[in-house]
Amino acid sequence: MAKKSEIKLIGTVASPFVNRVQFVLNLKSIEYEYIEENLACKSELLLTSNPVHKKVPVLIHANKPPICESLIIIEYLDEIKPDVHRILPSDPLERADNRFWANYIDNKFFPLYEEMRVTPGKEGKDAIKKRIIEGSVLLEEAFIKFSRGKTYFGGDDVGYLDVVLGCFIAWTKFTEKNNEFKVFDEVRTPRLVEWVKRIWSHEAVKDVIPGNEVLVNFYMMLQKYRPPRAV
Amino acid sequence: MAKKSEIKLIGTVASPFVNRVQFVLNLKSIEYEYIEENLACKSELLLTSNPVHKKVPVLIHANKPPICESLIIIEYLDEIKPDVHRILPSDPLERADNRFWANYIDNKFFPLYEEMRVTPGKEGKDAIKKRIIEGSVLLEEAFIKFSRGKTYFGGDDVGYLDVVLGCFIAWTKFTEKNNEFKVFDEVRTPRLVEWVKRIWSHEAVKDVIPGNEVLVNFYMMLQKYRPPRAV
Repeated sequence: MAKKSEIKLIGTVASPFVNRVQFVLNLKSIEYEYIEENLACKSELLLTSNPVHKKVPVLIHANKPPICESLIIIEYLDEIKPDVHRILPSDPLERADNRFWANYIDNKFFPLYEEMRVTPGKEGKDAIKKRIIEGSVLLEEAFIKFSRGKTYFGGDDVGYLDVVLGCFIAWTKFTEKNNEFKVFDEVRTPRLVEWVKRIWSHEAVKDVIPGNEVLVNFYMMLQKYRPPRAV
Repeated sequence: MAKKSEIKLIGTVASPFVNRVQFVLNLKSIEYEYIEENLACKSELLLTSNPVHKKVPVLIHANKPPICESLIIIEYLDEIKPDVHRILPSDPLERADNRFWANYIDNKFFPLYEEMRVTPGKEGKDAIKKRIIEGSVLLEEAFIKFSRGKTYFGGDDVGYLDVVLGCFIAWTKFTEKNNEFKVFDEVRTPRLVEWVKRIWSHEAVKDVIPGNEVLVNFYMMLQKYRPPRAV
């Protein structure tokens, strides 16, 4: 097991991408030093660790070169510690299918929340809502396929897609509240409604999910630095 | 080795993402059936194989569920046939670093070529050129790091990043010619200039790279269906 100081994680508490790395570190019982970053005034450590994107999360393992981007970090952690709570399945086809849906969630689904924030006017927002709802149905179908009647995308316990989608629960609830609609609901996505409750109370997750105040502060920062588009 | 009919690849000859899968199939001496897709009128096979994105490439292995997205397909091929021409290195940190640069190339660098096409006016295009040139310098530095004084990103022979960046050579030359500038040049990126020549004549690559006529036709289709933005 890694010693306490062997793994450092540069992050910010409001970032779902950071939270997801924390989920995996917890699942694998890897101790780590957490370094909170101020995104409004980025540290020298972040700028030199991720000079290309200048973004969190960054993971530094025993003074080796830093590793950037959450999905890449997760695969790294799964490769250096495959014996404790394997995240990706071992079958190549299932791995491919997991990666496909992770990309869908990161590149198509979650960006719609930000699109909702910056899109002005009811008509524009309603069009985004429609796309989020279409996406939620695809995710429900994916859940049915992956879970095979069990509790998580990963089956009996949390797997790759539980981590990937699970880190967005706090922002999902925040987006629902802000926009008066449900991303996941009992009629359209009954299994994901149950899944959200289970993930939310999972031992490895519950101390990582940011509270409402953290989200509100981050949202205010976004509104200031990347304001909604003009009507 | 896979039998001829065991692997099917749905693609279009002008797509660098399809070409990159073909590189890997050739490197691994995997025979496959190639099915050319007409993107202007998508086939039932494509729509049912990739209902989420409706894009090529799609790989179908022995009637199993289809695999979509080029980088995911490449990792799959590397996992089912690791003994012939390993594409990703085995060290977890090097794997992470390779994946990082692959994402940079796909999500930051190559999209600038399309951005160049749709951006109107000299001033707008010059700003994109500047970003492409900045990217080329980052890629030269990455090449120096990965190649360790040898011939390819992968060292003595073609590796993951050779495949990932190599598939864009034809579109690079096309973009250079169309916009009267050099993406890679002797002064700024001397090693990549040499690397381009080597990739271009590599046995696994040379029959896959699309000819100029193919690119011109594809470009005309793009101009028609996704015309440049108005000034």
